[in-house]
Amino acid sequence: MVFQKHLTFQTRGPGDMHDLTEEVTRIVQSSGIRSGLVQVFVVGSTGAVGTIEFEPGLQADLPETLNRLIPASREYGHERAWHDGNAHSHLQATLLGPDVTVPVRSSAPVLGTWQQIVFLECDTHPRERTLVVTVLG
Amino acid sequence: MVFQKHLTFQTRGPGDMHDLTEEVTRIVQSSGIRSGLVQVFVVGSTGAVGTIEFEPGLQADLPETLNRLIPASREYGHERAWHDGNAHSHLQATLLGPDVTVPVRSSAPVLGTWQQIVFLECDTHPRERTLVVTVLG
Amino acid sequence: MVFQKHLTFQTRGPGDMHDLTEEVTRIVQSSGIRSGLVQVFVVGSTGAVGTIEFEPGLQADLPETLNRLIPASREYGHERAWHDGNAHSHLQATLLGPDVTVPVRSSAPVLGTWQQIVFLECDTHPRERTLVVTVLG
Repeated sequence: MVFQKHLTFQTRGPGDMHDLTEEVTRIVQSSGIRSGLVQVFVVGSTGAVGTIEFEPGLQADLPETLNRLIPASREYGHERAWHDGNAHSHLQATLLGPDVTVPVRSSAPVLGTWQQIVFLECDTHPRERTLVVTVLG
Repeated sequence: MVFQKHLTFQTRGPGDMHDLTEEVTRIVQSSGIRSGLVQVFVVGSTGAVGTIEFEPGLQADLPETLNRLIPASREYGHERAWHDGNAHSHLQATLLGPDVTVPVRSSAPVLGTWQQIVFLECDTHPRERTLVVTVLG
Repeated sequence: MVFQKHLTFQTRGPGDMHDLTEEVTRIVQSSGIRSGLVQVFVVGSTGAVGTIEFEPGLQADLPETLNRLIPASREYGHERAWHDGNAHSHLQATLLGPDVTVPVRSSAPVLGTWQQIVFLECDTHPRERTLVVTVLG
């Protein structure tokens, strides 16, 4: 059985992190699927999906870490060609990845108490984002 | 068809890597599913799941690389709030990711000869870990 | 329902990136599955799969970024044991990950306009690569 829904929301710009856990849990519940997997995927190449403890410290630490490892200020081939200032956004998003898959049991995602499903905006400006949530079971 | 099992084990502390390939293979075999996917997920936000050649060199190299890129010694917002000394554990785990999915064919995970499914402890102390293995097919 | 196919191709050596989007789309279409997930997995521990905008700038930027973060020139335990010069290949591949999963809707992978499914060769020499594409729905 397959159940698929979209999530759309507005981000506030680079480093903006969204906790998707409640909405993903609601989608799993409305799917009627008791056991299986739920997958969350961002449509687009400058945003990332993953799991982390969603609290203000790590909300700042994760984008800061990515900016330290893959800074906006370096010379990138993407910049020389496109001049849109977001080569680092693409690279950060690819490194973190566009998707996460979480097991479903008893009609809910199986997560730790301090483990949330999040979206991270890696682009340089606020964007409207579309994610696809797919429940299989 | 969905088949789901838990794995629990004790880790010896930061950088402890566990080869899960045999147990995952056994779960796939006992599922009766011949073709599909097997997904491995760690419940909790300071451990990671992935694939690597499981040999003593890389067992040390991977946590050393993560500690070099995301060291324990930096100032993190998570530390200022929680003082539990494991901000880097969260960030390393998020970067590597909590899950991996491997194709199943002829009732076995399809892996390279030098490609194993592993769990990496990123936290600062030994922990009991729970992973969920889901076979879909 | 499960549909599984192999992709095999030759790479030209380290940093060689392949756009798999067309072939994955064709496999999804031939599966007859309208809605679900498609998963792409590299068999082997020195190649990586992900999504990125496939254009010449980022094709160079991604391997350069990985080489900067995890350089070939460092001392690695894997080298001391095996002397095959590719410890960094293993570590880069594990960091990026061997798999990506993309939602399927209307018999096609759901991707952004500038978001392609790619394979990146992280090994030190040209290789023949085998990937498994699994469609579930």
